[in-house]
Amino acid sequence: MDSLQKYLLLIERRLQENWERFSNPLPLYLFSAYHMGWVDESGNPLSEFKGGKRLRPLLCVLINQAFNGSLDDALNLASSLEFLHNFSLVHDDIQDGDEKRHNRWTVWRLWGVPQAINVGDSLFNLCFQVLTQLSSPLLQRISLKEITNTIQELIEGQYLDISFEKRNDVYLKEYMTMIEKKTARLFATSLFLGSFSANYKEDISRKFFEMGKNFGMFFQIADDIMGIWGDSRKTGKTPLGDLWKKKKTFPIICLLHEASDKERQKIYEIWNKSNLLEQDISYILQALERKRVKEISFNTAKKFFEKSYKIIEEYEELVDLSLIKELFKNYYNLIFSSQS
Amino acid sequence: MDSLQKYLLLIERRLQENWERFSNPLPLYLFSAYHMGWVDESGNPLSEFKGGKRLRPLLCVLINQAFNGSLDDALNLASSLEFLHNFSLVHDDIQDGDEKRHNRWTVWRLWGVPQAINVGDSLFNLCFQVLTQLSSPLLQRISLKEITNTIQELIEGQYLDISFEKRNDVYLKEYMTMIEKKTARLFATSLFLGSFSANYKEDISRKFFEMGKNFGMFFQIADDIMGIWGDSRKTGKTPLGDLWKKKKTFPIICLLHEASDKERQKIYEIWNKSNLLEQDISYILQALERKRVKEISFNTAKKFFEKSYKIIEEYEELVDLSLIKELFKNYYNLIFSSQS
Repeated sequence: MDSLQKYLLLIERRLQENWERFSNPLPLYLFSAYHMGWVDESGNPLSEFKGGKRLRPLLCVLINQAFNGSLDDALNLASSLEFLHNFSLVHDDIQDGDEKRHNRWTVWRLWGVPQAINVGDSLFNLCFQVLTQLSSPLLQRISLKEITNTIQELIEGQYLDISFEKRNDVYLKEYMTMIEKKTARLFATSLFLGSFSANYKEDISRKFFEMGKNFGMFFQIADDIMGIWGDSRKTGKTPLGDLWKKKKTFPIICLLHEASDKERQKIYEIWNKSNLLEQDISYILQALERKRVKEISFNTAKKFFEKSYKIIEEYEELVDLSLIKELFKNYYNLIFSSQS
Repeated sequence: MDSLQKYLLLIERRLQENWERFSNPLPLYLFSAYHMGWVDESGNPLSEFKGGKRLRPLLCVLINQAFNGSLDDALNLASSLEFLHNFSLVHDDIQDGDEKRHNRWTVWRLWGVPQAINVGDSLFNLCFQVLTQLSSPLLQRISLKEITNTIQELIEGQYLDISFEKRNDVYLKEYMTMIEKKTARLFATSLFLGSFSANYKEDISRKFFEMGKNFGMFFQIADDIMGIWGDSRKTGKTPLGDLWKKKKTFPIICLLHEASDKERQKIYEIWNKSNLLEQDISYILQALERKRVKEISFNTAKKFFEKSYKIIEEYEELVDLSLIKELFKNYYNLIFSSQS
């Protein structure tokens, strides 16, 4: 088993221990265990794990261990961050009306919106309950401050994302602000807290915060690229799914930015339809090609990746960052090879 | 101005200061200011305050001041508890589909369910952001633990309440557990933290926790009584509103407990209808009268009130609890005089 795998197992175990510690036989907790990917909808353990990639907790633990920090604190912080991420997913699925996640029914689809709101709230609270277990009062204080600031940005990002649905004129700058808040900030905080919990140094930890933020921007734009051009066998997403759902992702915002007034008008007309046709999707795909949007998107994602990678290289002499480097590269290759 | 009024003004000011500290011009924060009762739906200040009674923060501050505690800490804890209460109201309105609160449109009704989920989440987070301002690490640690435990119970209570809607056979004991979690616990924690922030004594603070729990039970059952027999001019509620909405409140659960099999069957039949008629409401009202449910409910509420009041009397020699006594009595009289 490689080292990344070893840490993933430790994280998964601690997530389950923390969940158990603050749960009881009420079905509410079955719903959250289902969402976390541990049981099926009847509460039976799954033969195959169905949760997410645990990328944020993994980054938190890796940087902590690179500095020889307390693994116990790192695993608790990692749990907190992953529960936070999952609270936002449960509420996000309600807000977007998404019926599936990781090829399984979403919580609201199975148990209704009212109980799904409770499940999200319960994971939200769990994120703070886990913090009560940190070893030092200073770490607890800093974590509470960082995590609440992160959640605030995340909710603001979610607010913006939803507000974009009703607007045609979303500018690239606004879009970048939105993903920085909604996605990148949590990556930044994962690396900041992982580092701080090991070295208790704010200045160096802020550097890793920047590293995380840039990786997060790369991650989101890459995800947006996959939503249009991804190989659905590899991504598990519906082919061209984001176009059919009229999602305003990076390539689309970029297309609107590059398009002529006439092209922009045509896209707005398509969005005004209640149901899209094959020919509408074709038009958008052709426009994307005409304006070389795929290339622009890839280059933008790449630029963020490189910024992030540069910070790794800067600190490589000070501390062994080989596992984070491996993880980053894996992701980079996965994304740049899984386009159809 | 009397002393209760003076504290209410201090609380309102601190709530607004704390809200401002963690807000920005994003409309999301206008939505939460609207919910808190400070502005109208366009963001203009209201000529008349439209928020709630601020009962939980008031209890927190009163007990803290009775022990000559730090007013600054008390006001921050009070803010945290009131934001917590309001997060739960915003989500509760979505879950129940309630269109009005305090005679104003609810957040989801004005800005849609997705943004209302964000507003609730944002107040949820604000409850923890405020805690970062407490003066001592010990108080911060204890508050984080107590508040997360309280939120857990609150969400469990909300889970149970929603699950009761789909069941006819809800037992009195289950109902009491539900309101203890959903309502009473927050009163208990308000008094616990108010006391602890002043005297830093866990044992005596637990006594006030009990006082708050009993007052909270009284408060909820009294509210349930008002939902059926309250004078709508005084309560601001729809006359017989809870009966029309088929709400399973204390008097109804009590009626099911006291009713004959035949009567119970008849009530279940009424609930199975999609729309109730005047005669259905009459049947239930008559059954309530036959079984003397109003009297039983009043007596149960009174018993909890007395338990709570007894704890006041027990500590009266140690500390001046006259303002809490006044507040409790005001509530008691308000409720027992506002029945139609």
